[in-house]
Parts: sequence; structure tokens; C-alpha cells
Amino acid sequence: MSKISRVVVVGGTHGNELNGIYLVKKYERSPHLIARSSFESCTLLASPRAHQLMKRYVDTDLNRCFRQQDLENTSLSTYEAQRAKEIYRRFGSGGSQPADLIVDLHTTTSNMGLTLILPSKHLFNLQLASYLTSIHPSIKVLCPLTQNLDAPYLNSISQFGCVFEVGAVAQGVLDAALFQQMEALVHSILDYVEAFNQGSPLSFKNTLHLYQTIQSVDYPRNEAGEIQAMIHPQLQFKDYNALHTGDPIFLTFDGQTIVYEGESTVFPVFINEAAYYEKGIAMYLTEQHQCTI
Amino acid sequence: MSKISRVVVVGGTHGNELNGIYLVKKYERSPHLIARSSFESCTLLASPRAHQLMKRYVDTDLNRCFRQQDLENTSLSTYEAQRAKEIYRRFGSGGSQPADLIVDLHTTTSNMGLTLILPSKHLFNLQLASYLTSIHPSIKVLCPLTQNLDAPYLNSISQFGCVFEVGAVAQGVLDAALFQQMEALVHSILDYVEAFNQGSPLSFKNTLHLYQTIQSVDYPRNEAGEIQAMIHPQLQFKDYNALHTGDPIFLTFDGQTIVYEGESTVFPVFINEAAYYEKGIAMYLTEQHQCTI
Repeated sequence: MSKISRVVVVGGTHGNELNGIYLVKKYERSPHLIARSSFESCTLLASPRAHQLMKRYVDTDLNRCFRQQDLENTSLSTYEAQRAKEIYRRFGSGGSQPADLIVDLHTTTSNMGLTLILPSKHLFNLQLASYLTSIHPSIKVLCPLTQNLDAPYLNSISQFGCVFEVGAVAQGVLDAALFQQMEALVHSILDYVEAFNQGSPLSFKNTLHLYQTIQSVDYPRNEAGEIQAMIHPQLQFKDYNALHTGDPIFLTFDGQTIVYEGESTVFPVFINEAAYYEKGIAMYLTEQHQCTI
Repeated sequence: MSKISRVVVVGGTHGNELNGIYLVKKYERSPHLIARSSFESCTLLASPRAHQLMKRYVDTDLNRCFRQQDLENTSLSTYEAQRAKEIYRRFGSGGSQPADLIVDLHTTTSNMGLTLILPSKHLFNLQLASYLTSIHPSIKVLCPLTQNLDAPYLNSISQFGCVFEVGAVAQGVLDAALFQQMEALVHSILDYVEAFNQGSPLSFKNTLHLYQTIQSVDYPRNEAGEIQAMIHPQLQFKDYNALHTGDPIFLTFDGQTIVYEGESTVFPVFINEAAYYEKGIAMYLTEQHQCTI
């Protein structure tokens, strides 16, 4: 494959996820921190108006606005639909500054630690993930079961892209420890790309531990759609821990435990993410896989 | 003093603090849970529109709308100003169902555990707090240095009132363990009032450990008001821990530590509360006192 010409570090795809926003603002003040000799580094505050309002989004979730048909749909007029088109016209494949690699920085109220989400299993992505896990061993790597060729996510407009989800952090809160770890991750990515471009790739293991999402699970709801139970205390903050048949997953408001009835052991992630209540997602279930690169 | 005739359990003064909201909804479905023989128990979802929007407030913080001059000001037309007047007309001293005791249920992104905030040091409040701490020993009791006779808080419209602040919980998230603890606290209050009314008060210790707020501390900001530092990792989630001269309190985005320069040992609370960034409050400093009842 050819060299990486442009990397874009994105914060504020969701306006109330402050760590990524303040890290991008830092890079805007001090661009030398992300400058490397073999490629251009750009920054993007993706949804400044949502950040100004300290909300996830103004009209709709920006990180679901990047499907090709939506980018081409001139009738979509929400703030986020327009913003997605602007971002695509700049950093998309036919844009004024096409991005080869987008690093999109998110936080989550789930206890996801340092999670790297890979949109595809392209060899470059897998090698980068393997390198990152070798120098930041606490990283967990999450990927979809099947690759979505027309994904709605911001990072999907570049050939290579990844999302960092760090947590647990409340919306509207800066977490200094995770800020510093996020910064170290970004620099590791830039260093990896620099070495890759220079033909002397940094070493990585030829195996990678992956968590593959297999399904989402909603909260128990009544006919009106209202939640009937909470994440069980024994599951709260236990992202990536094994969940076996019969383990508690929900607790009703009357104190009744609801257990996991699936037959296979799974590894829940995004447990009790605030922004997913409205999406009908209490958690995602994943399976572990060892991937040979 | 005379008997307590009416207790009001309030949730959703802030629309994205879900624990109190779902506890009040539970009581609305099952009013017998809060019914006692010697007084009337009511519930209130204080800001339903803010909850519908999953926001703290629609126009302005409802829990700052209850000053007498604002309640009497006919020109105030925000959703919350109007809602405050409705609540006051119902539960205020001259209202249709005047409340003697309001229990206002909040959550916080700070690690406040189970915090009981007393608006005044009226003997009844102190005795109730002492009883609650005897059966829920993890409760911390917080009170202002001086009593505000015209406070802007919802609970201030009743003679006796208290606020529970439980955390750390992210905005927009239900925490089942804290939900159950919050429920136990409410029932303890109702049991205490019932016994008080029946002339056989439940026993309490004659000393009470109090944290008195002495001042708020803002984030370091530049001239434009933008934050220049984060809560230091060593202080994050350390609410109620002793802070000594020279201890780290902030960390700049460049990694510089800013220390506490006060001369006396203090006990910070509401550290890194999401809703207080816009209020210019990074934390409150408190002093410990032993109070004899």
C-alpha cells in the first residue's frame, strides 16, 4: 500500500465528550506536537455547536450521518447532516484535504478503559492495533462481526480509521488521567505511521486479541417503551468481563434480578452508556477471538 | 414543634439525574410504599420537560428558581421560572398542599457517596440527620456555613427540607446500587417522621459530624473564560478526603501540577461535577465540625 499522506485527529464528534475536545484544542494551540515529517497532521472539532451547548448533538447524532446516501441527500438539513457534508467535502476521498487515517476521540460512561474500535480488519488497521497493544497493554480492541462498507461513522470517510472510546467518564466531565493516556495513544499512532511511511515499520506481534460485537441488548421495557429495569449492580462497570449463562444482567425497580439466558459465554461492552438509552442499547455482547496477522 | 403533616419526595429537579426520577416513578406506581399513618406523602417530578429532553434544565437551573423575589416576579417566563411558581403554589407555605418536609433526590458526577445536605441547622433537621447516619453510617452530612433565609433551592419552600446527592453517577445513567440505597434512605426518613409524629421519636446520637462549605474553587481559566487545567488525577473522586497545603488540585493540559495553597486543611466536595463547569465551580471546600444536638 502507498504511504499515509494525511492523518486527522478528531475531537467533539459528540459535544459533551470533553477529553477529545480539549486534546484537539491543545493540538490546535501546539500543532508541533502532532507534526511528523512524512505526512500532514490535521485536527478537527467535529461539532462545535453541540460542544457550545454541552450536548451530545444539536439535532441528531453526528456519528450516524456519514452514510454515502445521506452525504449525497440534499434534502437533509439538520445541523449534523450539514456538518457531515462539510467534513466530507474537506476530508472525504474526493475532498480538498482527503484523509488517509482518521483518529476519532470519544469518551463513554461505560467502563471501557482504553478501547480501540477498528471499523475494518484491513491489514494496516490490524498491524497498527497490534503495535498499540504492545506498548499500551491495557488497550482492548473491538471490531464489528462483519465489515460495513457504508458505515455511518465519521471515521469511515477515510480508508483507515479508528475510534478511541475511553471511560468511564461522565458526559461533560474532563478526566485528567484518561486525558494523558489518550494523548499517549495519539502520539503512538503518529509515531507508527511515521515509521511505516519511512519504510521501517515498528514491530508488532503477529497475533491480536479481538472482541467482536455480536448483538446489542436493550433494557427490559413496557409497551410504552419505558425502562423496567436497570443494569444489575454485579454487571455495572464490568465491561469485558465474562458473562455466563445465569449471571445477573438487570435488576427491576422492585429488586428482581434478571439473568443472562444466552448459552455461550460473552463479554459485554458499553454497559450502561448514557447516550445509548435512547438508542435502545443497554450493552453490546461480544465474543473473543485471537486473530493472526 | 407541631407534627409533620405532609412530606414530598421530589425527583427530577434536574432532568438528567435519573435515579431520583425513577424512584419517584416507582412511588407513583406504588404509593403504599411511602404511605404512613400520621402524615400525607406526596411525590413530585419537578421538571418533566427537562427529563423528556434528558437535560439538566430547559432554560435555567430549576434548583436556583425558588427565591421569594423570583417566585413573585411575574416577568420571569422561562420554563423553570414558571414551573417553580407552580410547585410553590402547590407545596409552598401558602399553597394548596403545603409541604412540611421536602426530600429532594439528586445524583452527582462527583464521588459524594450518600450525601445529605441540610439547608438549615434547625434542631429537627439535625436530629433527623443524626438518626440517618446512625442507621446508614456511610452518609456524609453537608451544610452551608451560614443559613440562607431566602435560598433558591426547591427544598427551601418547606420549613424542613433536605437534599440527597448520591454519586458518582454520570448524567443520564441509572445506577442500581445507588438506587437501592437512595430508596432505603427515603424509607428511613419516613419512618423517622412517623415515629416523631407519634411522640415516640427514634433514638439518635447527640453528636453529629458535619461538613460545612466555606468556599467554592473555580478551574484556572484564561481571559476568555476557557478552562486551563483539569482536576488533578490525585484529587479526582477524592471527595471528603483531607486536602493539605501543597497537595495537587489541578493538572494543566501541558502536564503542570497546580497545588492547594490554602493554609488550613480542608475537605473538598463536588469535585468535577459536570453541571458546575458552567457555574465556575471545580469543587467546594469544606471544614469538619462536630455538632452537639
